Amino acid sequence: MCRWLAYTGTPVLLDQLLYKPAHSLIDQSLHSRLGVETTNGDGFGIGWYTQEPEVHTPAIVRDVGPAWNNRTLREIAEHVRSPLCFAHIRASTGTAVQQTNCHPFRHGHWMWMHNGSITGFHGLRRELCMAVDPVLYLAMEGTTDSEAMFFLALTFGLEEDPPGAVARMVGFVEQVGRKHGIEAPMQMTVAVTDGSAVWAFRYASAGVARSLFYSTRVESLRALHPDLEYLQELSDDTRLIVSEPLGDLPGAWNEVPEHCYGVVQGGQGEMHSFTPLAV
Amino acid sequence: MCRWLAYTGTPVLLDQLLYKPAHSLIDQSLHSRLGVETTNGDGFGIGWYTQEPEVHTPAIVRDVGPAWNNRTLREIAEHVRSPLCFAHIRASTGTAVQQTNCHPFRHGHWMWMHNGSITGFHGLRRELCMAVDPVLYLAMEGTTDSEAMFFLALTFGLEEDPPGAVARMVGFVEQVGRKHGIEAPMQMTVAVTDGSAVWAFRYASAGVARSLFYSTRVESLRALHPDLEYLQELSDDTRLIVSEPLGDLPGAWNEVPEHCYGVVQGGQGEMHSFTPLAV
Amino acid sequence: MCRWLAYTGTPVLLDQLLYKPAHSLIDQSLHSRLGVETTNGDGFGIGWYTQEPEVHTPAIVRDVGPAWNNRTLREIAEHVRSPLCFAHIRASTGTAVQQTNCHPFRHGHWMWMHNGSITGFHGLRRELCMAVDPVLYLAMEGTTDSEAMFFLALTFGLEEDPPGAVARMVGFVEQVGRKHGIEAPMQMTVAVTDGSAVWAFRYASAGVARSLFYSTRVESLRALHPDLEYLQELSDDTRLIVSEPLGDLPGAWNEVPEHCYGVVQGGQGEMHSFTPLAV
Amino acid sequence: MCRWLAYTGTPVLLDQLLYKPAHSLIDQSLHSRLGVETTNGDGFGIGWYTQEPEVHTPAIVRDVGPAWNNRTLREIAEHVRSPLCFAHIRASTGTAVQQTNCHPFRHGHWMWMHNGSITGFHGLRRELCMAVDPVLYLAMEGTTDSEAMFFLALTFGLEEDPPGAVARMVGFVEQVGRKHGIEAPMQMTVAVTDGSAVWAFRYASAGVARSLFYSTRVESLRALHPDLEYLQELSDDTRLIVSEPLGDLPGAWNEVPEHCYGVVQGGQGEMHSFTPLAV
Repeated sequence: MCRWLAYTGTPVLLDQLLYKPAHSLIDQSLHSRLGVETTNGDGFGIGWYTQEPEVHTPAIVRDVGPAWNNRTLREIAEHVRSPLCFAHIRASTGTAVQQTNCHPFRHGHWMWMHNGSITGFHGLRRELCMAVDPVLYLAMEGTTDSEAMFFLALTFGLEEDPPGAVARMVGFVEQVGRKHGIEAPMQMTVAVTDGSAVWAFRYASAGVARSLFYSTRVESLRALHPDLEYLQELSDDTRLIVSEPLGDLPGAWNEVPEHCYGVVQGGQGEMHSFTPLAV
Repeated sequence: MCRWLAYTGTPVLLDQLLYKPAHSLIDQSLHSRLGVETTNGDGFGIGWYTQEPEVHTPAIVRDVGPAWNNRTLREIAEHVRSPLCFAHIRASTGTAVQQTNCHPFRHGHWMWMHNGSITGFHGLRRELCMAVDPVLYLAMEGTTDSEAMFFLALTFGLEEDPPGAVARMVGFVEQVGRKHGIEAPMQMTVAVTDGSAVWAFRYASAGVARSLFYSTRVESLRALHPDLEYLQELSDDTRLIVSEPLGDLPGAWNEVPEHCYGVVQGGQGEMHSFTPLAV
Repeated sequence: MCRWLAYTGTPVLLDQLLYKPAHSLIDQSLHSRLGVETTNGDGFGIGWYTQEPEVHTPAIVRDVGPAWNNRTLREIAEHVRSPLCFAHIRASTGTAVQQTNCHPFRHGHWMWMHNGSITGFHGLRRELCMAVDPVLYLAMEGTTDSEAMFFLALTFGLEEDPPGAVARMVGFVEQVGRKHGIEAPMQMTVAVTDGSAVWAFRYASAGVARSLFYSTRVESLRALHPDLEYLQELSDDTRLIVSEPLGDLPGAWNEVPEHCYGVVQGGQGEMHSFTPLAV
Repeated sequence: MCRWLAYTGTPVLLDQLLYKPAHSLIDQSLHSRLGVETTNGDGFGIGWYTQEPEVHTPAIVRDVGPAWNNRTLREIAEHVRSPLCFAHIRASTGTAVQQTNCHPFRHGHWMWMHNGSITGFHGLRRELCMAVDPVLYLAMEGTTDSEAMFFLALTFGLEEDPPGAVARMVGFVEQVGRKHGIEAPMQMTVAVTDGSAVWAFRYASAGVARSLFYSTRVESLRALHPDLEYLQELSDDTRLIVSEPLGDLPGAWNEVPEHCYGVVQGGQGEMHSFTPLAV
């Protein structure tokens, strides 16, 4: 059911994030430990912001097929440096395997990724899509619940108030779900960014939400592991938010509690509780 | 802007239709003469009915990329025999190049192909899609005007009365278009089949409609060209309907007049005038 | 390290072989139990002989990407009937993931599949390829050990004496390997067919060879399981040869011993020991 | 038969080269004017050097399918800046359409592109590939004449003396060709770079060689067109070498004479005559 990674911090070559770690996202595409499926081979995508002052949008490169054997992904990762990057590997929950159904999704300078699903989405899709703002609707290209959630959040004011918009989106999905006899439709971790801050949400209408972790502040990690050289090289404002830890270094990964969201900006991070809002 | 071919008659190996003719559909993917573009390399698709009594649906194989270098297409064509086949090569009019945006589209045992476009479709898409029957909507997978037209026709009774349903679909599109300031939205040739009969439509709200031809009855062709052996091998009920002629044999191809539709079944063919119906 | 399936018997719709069984090849692409990898998502291919008297070659349809989400494969399987079929799912052992590196390979009316590898193939490739007959060499399109093995077998007389040719091919690979310090280069199960008979080989220069099973004769299975209706429908000459069993029916699957090959033709099957021959 | 573009100069966003010009390479993929085919839709590739001091290799991103509808290419072009870039669009002259047959080819920090063909390559391929250094042979992944030419040039000392190595490569191909009754096998424009200098060759064994142009020095262009603002923005050491001009600005493009090669480095350019050398 997908795995994702969000990075913000000093600009790094993307392969530091995607390939080098012991249990990298690429490794997770073949051997995920905490996901619903061990294999996430129904597509992948990366999105990155540049260091070009005049380029305001992130690049997104998405494709069907597994991440583990994709050469384009490796070439980009080894040659592109970015201060803020999203990466996602897909295990389809039913919708077509096509480029427009891969994450991250982009709208303007915003990016969005999702792990999870809307239970019974097939029967809710039309009503959810109809609730998307008519102008925004035109930008929808795929058929996933993930993209619909993004465009509902945009409809509910994502660009002004991301946590509130996501809360209203979830509240709306739960409303529509219950109307159709689906008591607990939402299962999600979501990452969204405007290129400056990153918000990450962990929520399920019922039961355990998909796994979500954030990295310990680098200063603290250095104190924990003074012998590890590479920690010296990491910048203080390095933050990773991931579906599952990229490695086993003790103290490096912290679980995001259920029904919470975090926001990272300029090296600072905050955690808040998350509650759906009625719409 | 696409080219297509529909065949009905004695079961033939598909390469007889797709590759062998002098100006075959494959040739048209690279060198179309009558289309808006000479190149139609944004995807292709074939659909064929089998001779298996228990298999009621047609197979559809669609892919992005040009038809002219696709090995799968050639392999299938050289090894599959069918009595009724649709084939289409795509030049995108704006929507994503993906498998779910390639023709033919299928619903149950029906297939649909389209050449042309709905002018200003981008601004009409939401309203048109929202008019699709809510249950049928769930089967829509892409973002093309062509697929929307198909599902509107299904909504308006395609399975009971194809010509009437297509007339209502066109009428509805023209209504919605005019509401949005688009006076003459429809440009189309359409082929639709239930595996037994084939209906082909040629219509434009204004101006010249996309080209459409049908093959002369084989008996007549034999009389015209008594020396041509291969005409002896063709069955009497062989009929081809095409965007542009597959070759130059005098007398073999007849233009479908504007604002008309033809229907072929069991070797018999009829032509009728076509007028959009208000919905 | 790949999984494959070979079928010979009464013509069946290919999905009976590829999708319907409990642990079908499609299931094995995601959850292989006996292979080196659980996931075989680096490409797939099917080859089938038609029932067309004038078509002498098998069709082969191969593609990169996983089998489990490939629509073309499913469409073909649900609509094509064949008396003899090869199917293969790939986990690359190092060479590029491209269509020309997928199995089955075809030459004339022969097909070839392989599970396993030549240890140190990278360093042996040039010498092995240079030993291929100069005219045959021109037909080689990829870079796999599997394809090289096929073309070496063709060079050593596959079309006249398949078991002898494969024995000479293995003998030659072992010779060249030893020359380069690789004592035990060959690891293989191989299936090869001319459209009439199917030969299947199981051999490793050292250690345990990749798994290989053949189906029990249908008459015997019916005696074992008189209650199972579907066995009544299976023709007496149905034979499957597989990397791993397609299901758990007791008595249905028999392991091919190490250093053996089997040949199935016209419903008859024979097992023989297999020894590499010096060249 | 392919079109290509080489750029060296101030780092630019790649879309300035690939998409923005009036008759850009992307435009040439659909409407080439000077090539053998108007359509070059059998694959594409870009290669670019970064501005990362520790990254010594160029990135190469290649794919089958047309350049004109490829989103990954557009995304990269709009978000990646490079001081030296190769781009190529392919029209296959017979070999498989696959990623490993697309240009540019890379070896270490060298890149290579080719427009043209070796006449009768199919019959010469084995002998030419056998002449490649045994260690270099292992890096060959495709089946094109273009790749073989590159690896022969590497064998003949490309890394030490590019013009000499290419001259020996051409001499060798002509020798082998004549031995097989092909009097005039070579048809080529070639671009090769080590990330610092760019060499471009134009040669045909007989008849007219494929078209090749280089851009006028920017200072001279500014003098010719003092009113054009964008010329003010171009750096003095900007140089483009192209199969066909990217636009119609008078005085901007100069044909490379037949049997010549040019080399550009650090803004300086030189032209020399080119003669094959016997090997």
